[in-house]
Amino acid sequence: MNPDCIFCKIVKGEIPCAKVYENQKYVAFLDITPVNPGHTLVIPKEHYEDLLNTPDSVLDGMLNDSKKIAKAVLKAVGAEGFNLTVNVGPVSGQVVPHLHIHIMPRFPNDGHHLFKGGAYKEGEIQKVAEKIRQNL
Amino acid sequence: MNPDCIFCKIVKGEIPCAKVYENQKYVAFLDITPVNPGHTLVIPKEHYEDLLNTPDSVLDGMLNDSKKIAKAVLKAVGAEGFNLTVNVGPVSGQVVPHLHIHIMPRFPNDGHHLFKGGAYKEGEIQKVAEKIRQNL
Repeated sequence: MNPDCIFCKIVKGEIPCAKVYENQKYVAFLDITPVNPGHTLVIPKEHYEDLLNTPDSVLDGMLNDSKKIAKAVLKAVGAEGFNLTVNVGPVSGQVVPHLHIHIMPRFPNDGHHLFKGGAYKEGEIQKVAEKIRQNL
Repeated sequence: MNPDCIFCKIVKGEIPCAKVYENQKYVAFLDITPVNPGHTLVIPKEHYEDLLNTPDSVLDGMLNDSKKIAKAVLKAVGAEGFNLTVNVGPVSGQVVPHLHIHIMPRFPNDGHHLFKGGAYKEGEIQKVAEKIRQNL
């Protein structure tokens, strides 16, 4: 627990939330500034700043539980798809430094757009892949 | 394996890719239309259309392996953060119907923006949460 963390306070019940799910490891509740109704956050009860410093044992099961929660979200709001996102680091748009998975139900023409991709220059893709392999 | 699936063909080696990682369950390779250099896709070797119909046993370990790969991506391209995203269903922007996790390294002022959130109307958030709980 981090005494200054808003999500830790939600876990402890010190700050109210619209909770949709809880088990031994995780809590899920509605984002109060949803990209669409039903936008849900899944967080571990333990405090870890982001995905990179969260131990495997805490992550084990988090994707499976998020899948289960997402199915219920889609039924509840009548959506046919969703984006699951984890933002890591301020540069990515992460605002609260306590790991959270976003489940964002999507609707046709809801005005949200994915990041646009570009192209690699000739030969660049293999150089980048090689650098990543060297760091693994 | 799905004979018509481009990602299954990549797994089988029938289509080339800039591979960065492979183990018994997953393959990771560079997206050919990256939102930034180092944009990586992590896929299960088995064919499942999306997150919702992928068995827990296949997902077990996928977030942990993605964390490990993301660390190498960040080092390789010199990024301080990333967005991890799974798009589920055509309405969400999913193009290839074979589960894949996007690891998208981010840089300051790279021109990419998260979906914008709004607000619930008075009392609406509790109604939505209740509907989700009923579907869990």
